[in-house]
Amino acid sequence: MNEIRVFTPGTVANVACGFDVMGFALDSPGDEMVVRKITEKTVRILKMEGFNLPLEAHKNVAGVALLSMLNELNDNVGFEVEIYKKIKPGSGIGSSAASSAGAVVAANKLLGEPYSNTDLARFAMEGERLASGTAHADNVAPAIFGGFTLVRSYHPLDIISIDTPDELYATVIHPQIEVKTSDAREILKRNLLLKDAIRQWGNVGGLVAGLMRSDYELIGRSLEDVIVEPIRSILIPAFQEVKLRSKEVGALGGGISGSGPSIFMLSRGQETAEKVKAVMAETYDKVGIDYDIHLSKVNKQGVKILGR
Amino acid sequence: MNEIRVFTPGTVANVACGFDVMGFALDSPGDEMVVRKITEKTVRILKMEGFNLPLEAHKNVAGVALLSMLNELNDNVGFEVEIYKKIKPGSGIGSSAASSAGAVVAANKLLGEPYSNTDLARFAMEGERLASGTAHADNVAPAIFGGFTLVRSYHPLDIISIDTPDELYATVIHPQIEVKTSDAREILKRNLLLKDAIRQWGNVGGLVAGLMRSDYELIGRSLEDVIVEPIRSILIPAFQEVKLRSKEVGALGGGISGSGPSIFMLSRGQETAEKVKAVMAETYDKVGIDYDIHLSKVNKQGVKILGR
Repeated sequence: MNEIRVFTPGTVANVACGFDVMGFALDSPGDEMVVRKITEKTVRILKMEGFNLPLEAHKNVAGVALLSMLNELNDNVGFEVEIYKKIKPGSGIGSSAASSAGAVVAANKLLGEPYSNTDLARFAMEGERLASGTAHADNVAPAIFGGFTLVRSYHPLDIISIDTPDELYATVIHPQIEVKTSDAREILKRNLLLKDAIRQWGNVGGLVAGLMRSDYELIGRSLEDVIVEPIRSILIPAFQEVKLRSKEVGALGGGISGSGPSIFMLSRGQETAEKVKAVMAETYDKVGIDYDIHLSKVNKQGVKILGR
Repeated sequence: MNEIRVFTPGTVANVACGFDVMGFALDSPGDEMVVRKITEKTVRILKMEGFNLPLEAHKNVAGVALLSMLNELNDNVGFEVEIYKKIKPGSGIGSSAASSAGAVVAANKLLGEPYSNTDLARFAMEGERLASGTAHADNVAPAIFGGFTLVRSYHPLDIISIDTPDELYATVIHPQIEVKTSDAREILKRNLLLKDAIRQWGNVGGLVAGLMRSDYELIGRSLEDVIVEPIRSILIPAFQEVKLRSKEVGALGGGISGSGPSIFMLSRGQETAEKVKAVMAETYDKVGIDYDIHLSKVNKQGVKILGR
């Protein structure tokens, strides 16, 4: 096998209370990628469809992730990559992570899977470092592992798969405004109150417990962010209204997807997720800002092989 | 049924990363209590054996917890209480919580169980308010619910039972020095760094996941406290050495029990917990401070009925 085609998913990082540690994968949107093994120790991005992103390997997140993998390999091996991108860069649903994660998962398959998922996350994080200045793992982890993930620790990297309830759907609205991850990080405060931190880690514990026992009500109650959301949400028009109206039609809860501007809401069952989609659309139609909306079951698999 | 005798357990609150939210119950030490229903709307503490604590109901934690319950009852009913105390006050293993929790669980049984466990925790928290100035729930919750508990939220009170692995043992050493909960709270900083908070809630998520899937290694890796322990541990002689040596003989991890001075270590299996007990004793023998050591399986049941 010298060539593989994969689907690589969009992801929602942070997940309200789980700032910098939690994330989950979507069934849509997602990109497709073709990765080919070559007998030359190099990485070439041959094609980039959908968006105008750099083709030079060291300026491309997929390229950087693969170069980081090659750096640990002694073999005379390299990769050619084609990227068919559907996840808009800057949307807050892990566009760069999808490319990094898809590239390293595909390459690992072509090599006979010498690397663990945590190794792959480590390589993909180098793509994130290029994209945002920080080697965060909360998008690449769910893209690689599937479902919900918890980055328990960065040093050493310790990623925990969290069971995902069967009926969990995400509705994600992406208003057509751009919020750069680096800007969104800069407005955060470096200090916080102990009492707020306690409330946040109570919710993280609740979210993990709720997911693991498919307790949808507990998931909903735990989707509360008293630290980051109050600051970042001011960058997102109609954020509070979207959240409030989504809950009125049955959403469990939600928040900012990654560093925004996308907003995610989780629901039990597709029917409720469709209602959430309708009120999200209505709210933004009123505000007069263009948007995309994605409705997706939580993707338990992560990167999927489409063909060899 | 007009009289009930209960065992009410010591508890370990905070559990390293879970400051103010996590706790678990012990099989020993624990107190015994007798609670009697009377037809007069009052609370009388008839007996207090073991330690010299106030008998006036409004100055006694069990009394205050029961008065808080009576306050919500319309019936002409009250309680007489006898307390046979073994858990030393000020030891950091929930001495006051045991009395408050035991009293309200016993009273609830005598009344035909009109109250939920969360209601009972709310009453027992009034005892904690008397004892320490703060109505915290992280000791009363495991005493009432049994096993591990997570206080996800205080407003509204939301207590989550966390599954407890079968082979989990606690070794707790109580050095004979006194640290008052109120003093131990005062030395805490009101502010913390966002990066430390993120590490802490990653660990809380890991601890909950580890407990729920009986992943002992994950439990061990998650027993890390980067916020409170570095400050409070300076009040406890030989803290670092106890922790280090316990881990060398196989303990999963541990930390300060409650606000100290007791130190708890969790182990998989009784054999390892016994080794931990030995090195703890050895360490404190060397330091020349008297101590009690308790070795106990994690108590999944909480307050237990001994007789009616």
